[in-house]
Amino acid sequence: MEYRVGIDLGGTNVAVGVVNGNMEIVARATVKTRPQRMLDDVIYDIACCVKEAVKKAGITLQDCISVGIGAPGYCLARQGMVVYANNLGWKNVPLCEELQQELGVPVRLSNDANCAALGEVIAGAAKGAKSAVMITLGTGVGGGVVLNGKVYEGDLGPGTELGHTTLIFGGEPCTCGQRGCLEAYASATALLRQRHAAELAHPETAMKHFDPADGSAPFVCAGEGDETAKAVVEQYITYVGAGLVNFINIFAPEVVLIGGGVSNAGEALIGPLNEYVRQNRYGGRRSPTCEVRRAALGGDAGIIGAAYLDREP
Amino acid sequence: MEYRVGIDLGGTNVAVGVVNGNMEIVARATVKTRPQRMLDDVIYDIACCVKEAVKKAGITLQDCISVGIGAPGYCLARQGMVVYANNLGWKNVPLCEELQQELGVPVRLSNDANCAALGEVIAGAAKGAKSAVMITLGTGVGGGVVLNGKVYEGDLGPGTELGHTTLIFGGEPCTCGQRGCLEAYASATALLRQRHAAELAHPETAMKHFDPADGSAPFVCAGEGDETAKAVVEQYITYVGAGLVNFINIFAPEVVLIGGGVSNAGEALIGPLNEYVRQNRYGGRRSPTCEVRRAALGGDAGIIGAAYLDREP
Repeated sequence: MEYRVGIDLGGTNVAVGVVNGNMEIVARATVKTRPQRMLDDVIYDIACCVKEAVKKAGITLQDCISVGIGAPGYCLARQGMVVYANNLGWKNVPLCEELQQELGVPVRLSNDANCAALGEVIAGAAKGAKSAVMITLGTGVGGGVVLNGKVYEGDLGPGTELGHTTLIFGGEPCTCGQRGCLEAYASATALLRQRHAAELAHPETAMKHFDPADGSAPFVCAGEGDETAKAVVEQYITYVGAGLVNFINIFAPEVVLIGGGVSNAGEALIGPLNEYVRQNRYGGRRSPTCEVRRAALGGDAGIIGAAYLDREP
Repeated sequence: MEYRVGIDLGGTNVAVGVVNGNMEIVARATVKTRPQRMLDDVIYDIACCVKEAVKKAGITLQDCISVGIGAPGYCLARQGMVVYANNLGWKNVPLCEELQQELGVPVRLSNDANCAALGEVIAGAAKGAKSAVMITLGTGVGGGVVLNGKVYEGDLGPGTELGHTTLIFGGEPCTCGQRGCLEAYASATALLRQRHAAELAHPETAMKHFDPADGSAPFVCAGEGDETAKAVVEQYITYVGAGLVNFINIFAPEVVLIGGGVSNAGEALIGPLNEYVRQNRYGGRRSPTCEVRRAALGGDAGIIGAAYLDREP
């Protein structure tokens, strides 16, 4: 059996998994990131966490074909460098080099959204596809693109920043400093803002009885026939759908995947998105259908994708 | 010396070039397309045109490494099929197969905008770059993407339809049936519309003395200090710039190229676009600069790119 190690480096936690040749995670370990510490201390903890997971799997690091790490922010994969990552407070960190020194084996790097997309192509909702575009609808909107079975990294500067493409030029302010990005309309944060605006305009809506931070409220209430909630969901799906149509018109991928917290809405989100895409893709119904699917692996996608960063198509 | 043949199939003319190993066109031939005729007649004329160009070059078809054709509309490169092309009135035409029968040698196919982008990477303004995104600002907005030295084709359905990505969701109507596409703001057609709206609002502008179909009027008058023209140009550059920023945030290419009629404005267009991109790319001035350049080869780009569709990176 062949083994690989995948590391999902988040702002709060580091999650390590040992992945076997069946693309299953057979051992895990986690540690708090606490990124405000000295870099050496963070690296040391990541390395210990890797060693712990490998030990749990009953193997050694030398038994592993590949070790990969997915990091937030703008990463230079080929150089193994995290250029900047707000979540970590990092700038120009040669992550692969540092980690290789601790582990004694080569380490590969990519952005965490790219790793999640690759993981879903390797073992999840897009298994068997050559190409997939994945967006995660969470606090922000993340994007990962797999072409010809490999993560698309770009050549110069940050790429596949799908959340920071324009939906309404000059529109809502975005976290990136621009206005009108897809993220400003399609993130879970944006959905909550749309929900609260609708509650103000229509105080009779049942959404008012939900926790103000509960992004599922519009979907739950819409499912029960609440007209205000239905309008919020319909508008939100139109925003997300328009973003997907852009990416389909650009990449013509085999599959589009939706991950992140909002994707828990399931078929109430995915069904209408498929219909939107069928109608609005360039060429409309004359063009082949690009299926929209819900991501299947959750947080494991990032671990599995990182583990398979070595894979040549 | 090695030779290749490139064919640029347009709605009005077919242009054939024989390209030598220095990426120079050493012989040419053209013929009217007249696409409303029987398909066999069109194919026969294209084949004759190819034979004429080859004869002028003093070689035979069997001396050529590769024959490629760029066609308008939605093409399936791998299948050699023009799926639909409004300009030609074609639907599901197996162009490569038909042309191979006439010529007796294999023929490769891609969309004409893709061929133009490849030609500029092979021999033009992006020579030496691994990746480039090219948009043509003409009647519409065309898009071609070269990644790792090869045309990006997509896997399922029409791809790299960069003109049909959203700039202002729900905005100006587009030729494709949607609203708010980049094409509806950044094409030469859109620039004329913006010019005429400004003339109505500001009848004192010098633009009024230009031919109503002259897209260069805003740039010429802006250069002479006309305030209304300056405002039109500034707004137009913002639209084009926002589109470029999207493609840079997605592809992180080495170079961006601008072709089409509007690119004749030269540095008055390209200079401000570079400044816009530097300021507004994701990560802003912290991110590396992606240079915007004017395409260099004009109509020859499509011929040279088609000739090199065989090239593996």
